[in-house]
This record gives sequence, C-alpha cells and structure tokens, in this order.
Amino acid sequence: MSNNQKFEDNVKESDQVEGRNSVTQLLESGKDINKIFIAKGEKHGSINKIIALAKERKVIISEMEKNKMNQISQTGNHQGVIAIVPPFGYCEVEDILCYAKEKNEDPFIIILDGIEDPHNLGAIIRTAETAGVHGVIIPKRRAASVNSTVNKVSAGAVEHMNIARVNNINETIRYLKENDVWICGTDMDAKSFYYEQDYKMPIAIVIGSEGFGMSRLVKENCDFLVKIPMKGKVTSLNASVSAGIVMYEAVKQKIK
Amino acid sequence: MSNNQKFEDNVKESDQVEGRNSVTQLLESGKDINKIFIAKGEKHGSINKIIALAKERKVIISEMEKNKMNQISQTGNHQGVIAIVPPFGYCEVEDILCYAKEKNEDPFIIILDGIEDPHNLGAIIRTAETAGVHGVIIPKRRAASVNSTVNKVSAGAVEHMNIARVNNINETIRYLKENDVWICGTDMDAKSFYYEQDYKMPIAIVIGSEGFGMSRLVKENCDFLVKIPMKGKVTSLNASVSAGIVMYEAVKQKIK
Repeated sequence: MSNNQKFEDNVKESDQVEGRNSVTQLLESGKDINKIFIAKGEKHGSINKIIALAKERKVIISEMEKNKMNQISQTGNHQGVIAIVPPFGYCEVEDILCYAKEKNEDPFIIILDGIEDPHNLGAIIRTAETAGVHGVIIPKRRAASVNSTVNKVSAGAVEHMNIARVNNINETIRYLKENDVWICGTDMDAKSFYYEQDYKMPIAIVIGSEGFGMSRLVKENCDFLVKIPMKGKVTSLNASVSAGIVMYEAVKQKIK
Repeated sequence: MSNNQKFEDNVKESDQVEGRNSVTQLLESGKDINKIFIAKGEKHGSINKIIALAKERKVIISEMEKNKMNQISQTGNHQGVIAIVPPFGYCEVEDILCYAKEKNEDPFIIILDGIEDPHNLGAIIRTAETAGVHGVIIPKRRAASVNSTVNKVSAGAVEHMNIARVNNINETIRYLKENDVWICGTDMDAKSFYYEQDYKMPIAIVIGSEGFGMSRLVKENCDFLVKIPMKGKVTSLNASVSAGIVMYEAVKQKIK
C-alpha cells in the first residue's frame, strides 16, 4: 500500500475542518484533533496564532504543499490550514434537554425539517450559537449534515453547538412534547405573525426546507404556527434569514 | 467572424438571468428581455409556465443544447433556462426617495458598506424586497454588484428593487441627512440593542462588510448605532442574517 493510499484511507475515517477562523475555533473548543496541515510558506498573523494554539494543545502540525492542500480541500477555500479531526460527534436529543437544565434555562431548540443547502445549515447553526440556543436537531435523511463546508460557513459554531441527528422528526417532536417543550412551526399560511407569539417557555422552533417548507405531518404536530410578514412580490425568504428573524424575536423576549 | 464569436460578443453587452424562479420573476416584472434560452427537451411544469409567459410578452425563445447552456451559465445552476437581458439598470438615490414619496411612506432604505459576497448581496436584496424597503444603496468599488448570481440568490427580487450604485457612501449619507433621513448603523460596539431603537421615521440602515463591518467614517456619520445581542462564543453573524434581523424589527414597528 502506497503512502498516498494510506493517506486517502485515513481521510475517509475522519472529517476535515478548513480555514483559519474555523480551525482557530476548533482549537479553542478543546475538541480532539488528529493533525493540522499548514501550507508551506504561510507564516503570517492568524496562521501563527493557530500554530501557537496547536503547540499549546500538543497537536501535531505538518507542512504541506499548497497544491496538495487544494487537492484534499473539501470547501475549496482552506486559507492555508486544514485540520484532520475524528468524525463529527452528534449528540442525543436528551443531551440537549440536559444541557438546558444544567444552565437552569428553559430549553430553546431549533428543529430543521429538511434543510438541504450546507450554506443554510452552517448559517443557521452560527445564528443558533449566537442566540444561545441549546441544540439543533436535523434529520438523518434528505438533509444536509455537518461537513467541512457547514463548519466553515458556521464560523466554527458547530464546535460549540449540540447537534442531534434523528431518524424521524415527528417522533422527536413527540418526545419533546412529553418533556414539556412547545413546538412552534414557521409557515407562510400561519394566522399569527412571529412577533405576536410568546416564546418565554420551553420551546422548539421548526424551520422547513428551502423549497417546500415543513412537511405536512410536522406542520400538524406543531402547537402553533407563525409567519413573517411579506410586503413585496417575492413570497419567501432565505431559510437562514427566516430562522434568524424568528430566533432573535425569541432572544429579545427572553432578555427583556 | 464565426457565429460563436458573435454570440460571445453579444453576451458581453448584456446580462444573464438564470434559473426558473428568477426568469419567471423577470417575465412578471415587465422588464426588457432580449431572448430566453430553454434547454432542449425541458418541457415540464415551471418551464411550460415560462414559455407561456414569454409568448404572452412576445419574447423570443430559443432551444439550446444542455451542454452549451452549461458553458454559458454564470451561476452554474441554470435549471434549463437562461434569459439574456440588457445590463442591470441601477437607479439614483433620488429615485428611491421619490418612490417612498409616491407610496406616501417614510423612506426605508438599506445601505451596504462593502458587502463582497454575491450570495449575501442577493439574500439581503431578497429580504429588503419582502420587508418593503424602498431601495438598496451599494458602493461602486470594493463591493459585489448585481450579476446573475445575485439575481438568482435574490429569487428574482432584484427585478422589483430600486438599487443605486454610488461613488461615495459618505456623500450619499450626507445627501440623505439633508433629506431628513436618519442613519442607523449596525456595529458590535454599539451601546443599544437593535430592538431598543425606534424605526418609525425616515430611516436608512447601514450594514457593514462581512469581514470588517462599517468603515470608520461611515460609522462616525451614523445618527445612532445598534447591536445584536451575542450570547455564544462566535462573535458575529452572517451579514444577510444580521440585515434580516434589524430590517424586520423595523418592519414590525412600522406595522404595529
């Protein structure tokens, strides 16, 4: 077996985190890192910070030719630094509830019912992290999962967020309801505007897929539905923007 | 000169609008269209609607091989339909104020101080359109301008939005102030949260660039600054998500 083959095999059993911001966040999170590759000759500011952090954490650093890095890059924008990490560690839905309990806060959860675009998934996880959400729930099938693009777009927020990957969103909703969490769906046919809803309770906000919104059954299982006012000719918002608007209405009410 | 060369020359003097949603929006907007290319063999639902709309508006339709379309596509995701249109028509800042006056509404304007990513520009224009914003102002230099990617990401909202491209954002701010418009900047060092600010007045909201926020001078020229609460370890939001959160706070206050 050649060295190249060994390397390829190794990559398949692991994930990559790419870009200066994401790798810095990864190092600061304290999560396991197998190795960090730095492009040969890259020795300026933020890369030096990464090297210092990696040395502090005793993570192996290897130099690699820029061409080779371009080949192994999954995002196409590695900025001279790629970390090899164990596959992303999803949590259980139960862990999200425990985390809220530890913090002595009402559970604040985001459920994504079929977000397919990794850019949207990354941007939503980033917003969820800044909004103080306790966990994000995604389905196993027909949806984006956490990869290096999601990590990068999230500005490293995936490293600080509980993310559960479930077989069946409706079963998860049932489980959350049994644990006294209210389910709020976002739907353009809802009767109430999002700012008319009270979020000061244990709550999970459901965001539907980019093309089709929430599935019929998920919609039926929601305790209440809210909509965002649309005053123009375009009839829908980007999924990550909608998610941000509703999440921050909840943040605002919880702060006030 | 070969036919191919002629075609290439023609494309340079015009813009492209790509994708089913964007081209449908374009047709419905009533704007000029030179020609629409449809991929050979594409004859289902939304394409048939585009063909019907185009016939109604007497726009020339040509069939093109899918391979050839892939070559001329600027977004890499044309979905079997590309419209050739005259270059995007920017408006003047004055036109934005006139439009607000016509609608008998307080001017509601978005100023983008150096947004570089066409995906962010497209998503912000989309949100601005659904929020009932009267116009979006972008700088001529060091910033994304309207192209086929922006059009596509905006879900066609660029067709319904006044977009002004200016030499100097600070001069534009001065002009707006002379016309009784208040300037609200978004900045992480602001003292007030965005929801503490009153937006029920003639207002322009400034969104800074992805990496560096607003430039120093623009920040100094704002009448007030607002920030979005950040409760996690990541210290900033995606520019289009921030813009959506602040814009919709204004929408909510204007509706209530």
